[in-house]
Amino acid sequence: MKTNIRKATISDSAFILDMIRDLAIYEKAEDQVKISLDQLKEDGFGDQPLYDSIILELEGRAVGMALYYNRYSTWKGKSLYLEDLYVLPEFRGHGLGLKTMKYLANIAVETNCYRFEWQVLDWNVPSIEFYKKLGTDLDGEWINCRLEGSAIKDLALK
Amino acid sequence: MKTNIRKATISDSAFILDMIRDLAIYEKAEDQVKISLDQLKEDGFGDQPLYDSIILELEGRAVGMALYYNRYSTWKGKSLYLEDLYVLPEFRGHGLGLKTMKYLANIAVETNCYRFEWQVLDWNVPSIEFYKKLGTDLDGEWINCRLEGSAIKDLALK
Repeated sequence: MKTNIRKATISDSAFILDMIRDLAIYEKAEDQVKISLDQLKEDGFGDQPLYDSIILELEGRAVGMALYYNRYSTWKGKSLYLEDLYVLPEFRGHGLGLKTMKYLANIAVETNCYRFEWQVLDWNVPSIEFYKKLGTDLDGEWINCRLEGSAIKDLALK
Repeated sequence: MKTNIRKATISDSAFILDMIRDLAIYEKAEDQVKISLDQLKEDGFGDQPLYDSIILELEGRAVGMALYYNRYSTWKGKSLYLEDLYVLPEFRGHGLGLKTMKYLANIAVETNCYRFEWQVLDWNVPSIEFYKKLGTDLDGEWINCRLEGSAIKDLALK
């Protein structure tokens, strides 16, 4: 079956939000998705885009998406960070995951990123095995730390 | 003793690089620092800045730094990410760490970031305890995945 990857446009926003919700369900965090369609549009396709996104197609139909942006390493410089990669379960097994990782590796090379990085949940064994096959270095020594919403304000006013 | 925080300028770059190297030694990864002074200058103070940085002062002397940039959460929107926070060991204990976290929390609020986040090494108990006191949510369920340098090119050409 024919696979294709293309840059997302603002008219893909509703589809991207659907994919974000589906991925959150898989990650057992559906209630965490607070973003609105309008905000997603503004953040991705407004005057100061905060992310880039691509649409993954199978036989011309949108069946997945990836969302990424630049980060910075004080050890290595500019980095490409993959925030989300999702393919609808019924359309897996056609190589779209690998094709997307290769596509993003090419963008990283073209835009002078020394690092291409992402995170995986420690219980997501199929993804971990997939990433290992790509030569990925996995490091579980780091803990994510977060303050959100009112907790940030509490600290700001402390 | 009088503490102060100010925005870094390009003339602080050499000091920032010193702090990056010191922090890498603490993280047992000194050999990982590959960035040059020129690259750090260009990336932070050039036409398209990839990070922001602040200088932490004690009695008017630079004794630490923090480096941060925006990220994006598909659940919550714009995020402020703290990449590095470092105070020279001999100048700790004067509240510069807390002052910096409050300063950044204020920036997060002012710039409409719903999330303020960073990572900590799982063996760095003093920092973990400090972050817990700030109300931080710690999540060790995620594994960092990375491809660097030639490994990205290998995937791009796969």
